[in-house]
This record gives sequence, structure tokens and C-alpha cells, in this order.
Amino acid sequence: MITKDTKICIVGLGLLGGSYAQKLSLLGYHVNAIDTNLESIEYALEKQYIQKGSNDPSLVKDADLVIFGLYPMALVNWLKENQHLLKKGCICTDVTGIKQMIMAKIKPFLRLDINFIFAHPMCGKEVSGIKNSDAKMFLDANFIIIKDDNIEAMETIEQLARILGFARISYLDAKKHDEMIAFLSQLTHVIAVCLMNCKEDNDLKKYTGDSFRDLTRIAKINENLWYELFIENKDLLLAQMDEFILSLKEFRSALLNEDEVKIKSLFRQATKRRGEFDKSEDISN
Amino acid sequence: MITKDTKICIVGLGLLGGSYAQKLSLLGYHVNAIDTNLESIEYALEKQYIQKGSNDPSLVKDADLVIFGLYPMALVNWLKENQHLLKKGCICTDVTGIKQMIMAKIKPFLRLDINFIFAHPMCGKEVSGIKNSDAKMFLDANFIIIKDDNIEAMETIEQLARILGFARISYLDAKKHDEMIAFLSQLTHVIAVCLMNCKEDNDLKKYTGDSFRDLTRIAKINENLWYELFIENKDLLLAQMDEFILSLKEFRSALLNEDEVKIKSLFRQATKRRGEFDKSEDISN
Repeated sequence: MITKDTKICIVGLGLLGGSYAQKLSLLGYHVNAIDTNLESIEYALEKQYIQKGSNDPSLVKDADLVIFGLYPMALVNWLKENQHLLKKGCICTDVTGIKQMIMAKIKPFLRLDINFIFAHPMCGKEVSGIKNSDAKMFLDANFIIIKDDNIEAMETIEQLARILGFARISYLDAKKHDEMIAFLSQLTHVIAVCLMNCKEDNDLKKYTGDSFRDLTRIAKINENLWYELFIENKDLLLAQMDEFILSLKEFRSALLNEDEVKIKSLFRQATKRRGEFDKSEDISN
Repeated sequence: MITKDTKICIVGLGLLGGSYAQKLSLLGYHVNAIDTNLESIEYALEKQYIQKGSNDPSLVKDADLVIFGLYPMALVNWLKENQHLLKKGCICTDVTGIKQMIMAKIKPFLRLDINFIFAHPMCGKEVSGIKNSDAKMFLDANFIIIKDDNIEAMETIEQLARILGFARISYLDAKKHDEMIAFLSQLTHVIAVCLMNCKEDNDLKKYTGDSFRDLTRIAKINENLWYELFIENKDLLLAQMDEFILSLKEFRSALLNEDEVKIKSLFRQATKRRGEFDKSEDISN
């Protein structure tokens, strides 16, 4: 259980790590942080997001709860080099957007006396870094916890999500998580990127309506993070892209043939399915 | 020039026609309306959106300015049947979302003493009908006027757009308009529809983030209106879909080959292009 005496250490003070630090400190929790970038540490100290900060990994030694705000491969590498510093029995969690691959890389070498609960806070911005961090970013967001045998540690991470103020907390296995992410998040980013790339016309900006802006907002993409996320979830993303391309081709063929019955039935199906998302919005509010 | 003495008649009191009526009446202009649905007329009279209303087309007789809030084919048919009722020298305009085909259908039979300026108010909602009309719908929107030889009539329609409160008014030829619409509006609706149709999973709703909701909002689509719009702009939309599918395939191949240089360059290009849309947002605000 997390109490005001729990020693929390955040490794990686980017947008998410910074936002965790900000929110937890605001609520009076004890937060230290490690980052290779001393500017981020100084910023966090100045803003009182953290009590202590360092670029030295050994600051993690006394932490009861370690939150990794690192990109996927950086997390794997940090653990390989520094897991000997972690306190016996401490609880760890992460923020990475893909799970099967990262867990397959970490689990074989992870110390058995460490309780690592993998999690995915489903929130973000089109900007990065601690200076863009925001304690209110979690308020309307989903928090996914990957199912684990260690019930007590899972409950601690669920408590963390409640403290941070997430709107909905769900449990999934890693495969189901990655499939869901491939469709709901990764495919949508691919679509936005490809839509921006498929046509260059400087005049277009003048005529852009809301629907185009909404659809392409996420085309402003952090290349290093998303390259990793896509590669680590490659097979599932490729499969989702194929399903989407198939769906486009089905529509294309109906349009080519002016197949009114088919097109209207595709419209009705899309309208009905999207309407159900609204209903679930209502329920959650 | 439109003055408080100008007799305006709106034919078709749907979402757009109703919003035009609402805004113009609010500002003290003289607005009558024609609709086959007497309930819409009664609603508009009760709310004082119009001064007189009827399902009889002959109400159009004394109008100096006629605004057609009809679907594309309904507009063509109304003119065929009723253009003999229009006052000599009156100015007409429309709200339809595609132009080449509709103009090609109307121009051959349109009376030469009618000044028809085709226009496209680029705004809408995922709901229809006069009860959803909204005088504030135009405030952040683009208004496109199709270039015409009749300068005076064009200036009147530009004045109408200013009165309604559109944020930006542009002049385009019909072909350029339809190409732009095929990409910015129609392709985005196809994408949203195909994305909703390509996967059925009732569990997904629980985990949906903002990016997916933003991308699919327009999947709730008015099947009769959009079927017409797509069919009337079929060739250009098919061409845009092909460009987009090509762009997806290029990305798919880069992902399959884990081509880091290529993927990151596609990310950077998308980010840069989308960033320019933000800049034009700033300028317009």
C-alpha cells in the first residue's frame, strides 16, 4: 500500500514521468527522481515536483516504489545495468505503450525479488519533456494494468492509478493489450501520418475544416518513441493495417460500382458502431 | 447588396438552411422559407427564424435572394420544376458540398436571367434537421465561393457570408474545390467509416483514447447526403483514396523491413506538414 511514508522514485523525467512527479508531490507524497539530463532534474527541483534528484542511478536504492518513465529499450537497458541497485521487495512499474515484447525482454533477467507490475497510462500529448508535464493529464484517461500473479503488487499499482486520478482502470493480459493498442492507438497514428504524407498542397491549409484537423492532430509524432513502439509491436500493427486496407478496398470497390445498397450499409454499420462509443463515453462520465 | 429590405427566401430548412434562417433573422433580415415538411416550417415560425413559411414553392416569387439548403439532386430537381417561379434578376446560392457535377447538371437549363452563385459553407454537424440548427455554427468555418463572371452577384454572396459570420471566405474554381473536398473532407469520412468497419470488438470501447475518438467522430454519417456527395465526386474521391492507399502501403513496407531511416523520415514529413496547419490556425485566430 502506498502511504505518505512510501519512498517513490521516478526514473526518467519526461512528459509522463514529470507529470507523475508533479501530481504525486502536489498530494504530499515523497518523490525522488533520476534522469540522465540534469536540466530536467533542476527544473523538477525548482518546481518542487521532487524532493531529491540525480543523474546517479544509485538514488533508487531506498525506493519502495519505482516508476519507470523511460522509452521501451531505455527501460530494458536501465534494468540490465542497474537492477542490482533496486531494494529487495520493491514494487516497480512502467509507462510503455507496448507490452509483450518489453516483458519478454525484461522477464528472463529480472531479479526474482523485484515485483514488476507492467502498466500503461493511456494519455499523452503531441509535445514531450518535463516542461510540458501536466498533473491534470490523467483525469479523463484510461489506465491499463497487465495481469500478474502478484495480487498485492497489482493492488498497489491500482492504488497509484487512483491517486493519479485516472478515470478508468482496467486489467488486461499483455497480448490483448497489444492488440487493442495496435488498433486504437498505433493504426490511428499510421493513418494520420499517411494522410499528411499522401498529398502536398500548400493551398489546402486555407480550406481545412475540423474533421481534417481532428484526424491529423496525432500526425505530429515523436519519431524516436513511436519508431520503437511500432517496431516492438510490428506483427500486430501490420495485421491491423492489412484489415484497414482491406476495409478501404471494399469501400473503393462499392464506390466504383456505385453500389448504393452496399455503401449505405457500410455507412449504417459505421454510424452504429461509433454511436456505441458515445454511449460508453456517457457511462464513464 | 443585401439590406434590411432584401427579401430572402430559404428553400430547404434542414441543419444548414435552418441555421442560415436563424442567424439572418436574429440580425433583423427579412427571411421566408419553403420546405416540403410542414413541421420544419412550423418550428421555424414558432422560433421566429422566419417571417413566412410554406410548402408551396410559389412563396419564392418575390425573393431577391434565394438560398437553397437542399441536397444536390433535390436542388437540381427543384430548379427543373420551379425555376419559372423565380423573380427575374434574383440572386441564388446553394450549400452543396460538391460543385462540378451539380453545376454541370444545372447550368444547361438554368434561366439566363437568374444569377446563381454556387457556394459551399464548410461547416456541419453529425446530426441533421432544423432542430439542430445553430446560428453560431459559422463562426470558425470556411466559406467557399465558386468563381463566376457575375462580379456583382459574387459580391452579394460574399456579403452574405460576412453577415453569417464565417471566419474565412475564399474563391475557387469548381474543379479545384472538388479536388480539395475529395481530400480534406470526403477522404477523411471514408477513413473514419472504414476504420469503424474494419474491426468489431465490444471490449474496445473501454480503452478508447482521444485520438481514436477524434478520428472516428465523423463516422456517424448521414447516409443519404453522403452517398450523393461521394457519387457526384466519384472520380476525384477514388483518385484520393488511391493516393492514400499507396501512402499506407509505402509505410507498411517500411515497417515490414524495419527501415528506420524511411519510417523516421515519414514521421518528420508528417509532423512538419501538420505543423504548418497549426500555423495557419494561429494566423486565422
